[in-house]
Amino acid sequence: MEKIRELTVDLGERSYPIFIGEGLLQAPRLLEPFIHGQQVLVVTNETIAPLYLHNVIEGLSAYQVESIILPDGEIYKNLDTLNKIFDTLLTKKHNRTTTLIALGGGVIGDMTGFAAACYQRGVHFIQMPTTLLAQVDSSVGGKTAVNHPMGKNMIGAFYQPQCVIADTTTLRTLDDRQLRAGLAEVIKYGLIADTEFFSWLEDNIQLLLERDSTALAYAIERSCENKARVVSKDEREGGIRAILNLGHTFGHAIETFQSYGDWLHGEAIAAGMVMAAELSHLMGWVSEEDVCRTKKLFTLCDLPIAAPKTMSSEKFLTLMSVDKKVLDGSLRLVLLKSIGCAVVTADFDQNLLVKVLLRSE
Amino acid sequence: MEKIRELTVDLGERSYPIFIGEGLLQAPRLLEPFIHGQQVLVVTNETIAPLYLHNVIEGLSAYQVESIILPDGEIYKNLDTLNKIFDTLLTKKHNRTTTLIALGGGVIGDMTGFAAACYQRGVHFIQMPTTLLAQVDSSVGGKTAVNHPMGKNMIGAFYQPQCVIADTTTLRTLDDRQLRAGLAEVIKYGLIADTEFFSWLEDNIQLLLERDSTALAYAIERSCENKARVVSKDEREGGIRAILNLGHTFGHAIETFQSYGDWLHGEAIAAGMVMAAELSHLMGWVSEEDVCRTKKLFTLCDLPIAAPKTMSSEKFLTLMSVDKKVLDGSLRLVLLKSIGCAVVTADFDQNLLVKVLLRSE
Repeated sequence: MEKIRELTVDLGERSYPIFIGEGLLQAPRLLEPFIHGQQVLVVTNETIAPLYLHNVIEGLSAYQVESIILPDGEIYKNLDTLNKIFDTLLTKKHNRTTTLIALGGGVIGDMTGFAAACYQRGVHFIQMPTTLLAQVDSSVGGKTAVNHPMGKNMIGAFYQPQCVIADTTTLRTLDDRQLRAGLAEVIKYGLIADTEFFSWLEDNIQLLLERDSTALAYAIERSCENKARVVSKDEREGGIRAILNLGHTFGHAIETFQSYGDWLHGEAIAAGMVMAAELSHLMGWVSEEDVCRTKKLFTLCDLPIAAPKTMSSEKFLTLMSVDKKVLDGSLRLVLLKSIGCAVVTADFDQNLLVKVLLRSE
Repeated sequence: MEKIRELTVDLGERSYPIFIGEGLLQAPRLLEPFIHGQQVLVVTNETIAPLYLHNVIEGLSAYQVESIILPDGEIYKNLDTLNKIFDTLLTKKHNRTTTLIALGGGVIGDMTGFAAACYQRGVHFIQMPTTLLAQVDSSVGGKTAVNHPMGKNMIGAFYQPQCVIADTTTLRTLDDRQLRAGLAEVIKYGLIADTEFFSWLEDNIQLLLERDSTALAYAIERSCENKARVVSKDEREGGIRAILNLGHTFGHAIETFQSYGDWLHGEAIAAGMVMAAELSHLMGWVSEEDVCRTKKLFTLCDLPIAAPKTMSSEKFLTLMSVDKKVLDGSLRLVLLKSIGCAVVTADFDQNLLVKVLLRSE
């Protein structure tokens, strides 16, 4: 059995640990210090519930445990579904000392975290991410939200969990497409802040695709370290934290265009990261060779390296204009000075942006 | 013209000023330091809009200003109405530097504050309370929320405004019943923490009912001072802040019973405060004379001093059991040791509580 890897997201009084290892869903002693009162609500979805819900509930026999099983998918990440969580909490009379557990991928984590932020003006919650994407990205850093028909993650809160428990055995049941989508976020950390990790990924991508448990645990730990470092510096995204959104302004536009229906988040941002790299290259920053390395790594993961052909540059620009990074009308993008060095800037050539967008048409 | 009274809610980096005075809705220089970017959304309701909206908008001619006019009433304080605010913000492409202004009573303030807390994970907002109740209570302290059919203020956030601007001229157009309901919260501060102010209120209640502007400004200032002192000690209601809820556990049960339809909030908590005083007396704490003084002051304001006759004690106990102050199953109440000294306690005699509830039947 693998050791339990532990690291800390350092946020003063809101600091919390991340545990990475095998069989952690059924580790009550690990959980107990982070449960506030006697009540627990496990929030999960139809895909995850048959696989892992009973394990988690069994481990919590000392508590009053309820669960809610939501439909699976980004299209359900909205205020209506959020309200179902509140309905359950109120019907079961959960009070201010209740603890919510998010058992699932990014959608479950984002909604459960936001429900915890709002229920009775804030209760405790624990992230138990079961997808690679959630383990390396969305469960860490306290961004919670639901979508609005006019934009992704437009309604939410910065609200930190009590701890993150990433059980790597859950990756064994993960759909292959989901695994690859998660690798997009892993590769992101190499691109924005960790040249050495990017090279390691180039050397070890086959091991990851074959789900080698040691390689996966290492990639998760290294990704979380990178994310925790950035989040500790800038919890509420006043500045540097925005680099974690490499590819996301393009990617969110793609997702909104598709009404969150077609591509997975990881797929949309893979295409988005390539577009950001291409614009960065046209700006004279990242080298052509490094753009090729980036495309190659995504291609090895069967991830898209361009936007859907049906999406016009006009549509892109409209959807990008409501991005949260638009400050008083000027679009800011995360671009690459080189592999391992991202910058947030509004100072790019609009014509070059259009050139990149036109390549997709 | 009256002077502008200014006081501060002291919360470290989240500290903010409260301005109290005449004609402040049209004081752009007072506002400007608290507006974040170039965009402003004024949120108001059908009652207030014809009276004051144009004044506020005129004062903001230097900005891109939009407004949204919501239906008036506590029954609209829900997720659906909240979503209308998000619709407007997104349709008008408001970004993360937008500033929301809550122009109205407690319902508008609570919803606008919560919308500001959630929109793009948090934007600035300013409270411009136009009712006495909002000026002395709900606009100060950062409690924001919407109701759920199963309970009042169940979905919300602690989120502080940039400033509070209480224009006392708005009280001239305030409906008489609303003024009296606001006085219930003013009297509350005397009861929980300020014996001297309670005596002042006994001496000056007629002046307040006649809307004497100096008396009103003094009562608002003194109420805000009391509230600010308590909030500064305990922003997130871990302890002492709960005393601000004197009468509210009873009062919220009454409001939920009536589906927020019949009595005003101030009326429900007036009855609730009398019930709390009666229970406190049965516990051997507050004297019979002080219960009589309390009832007399409310009666002079034409406020109810008992719950609706149709509300059974069983119904009361059921509705009180979902109160936010229920900690792991035990109901906590705010009771009075004496006038000017409130305590939060779960240590009361349940039989005496039932005795008080039965009096209403």
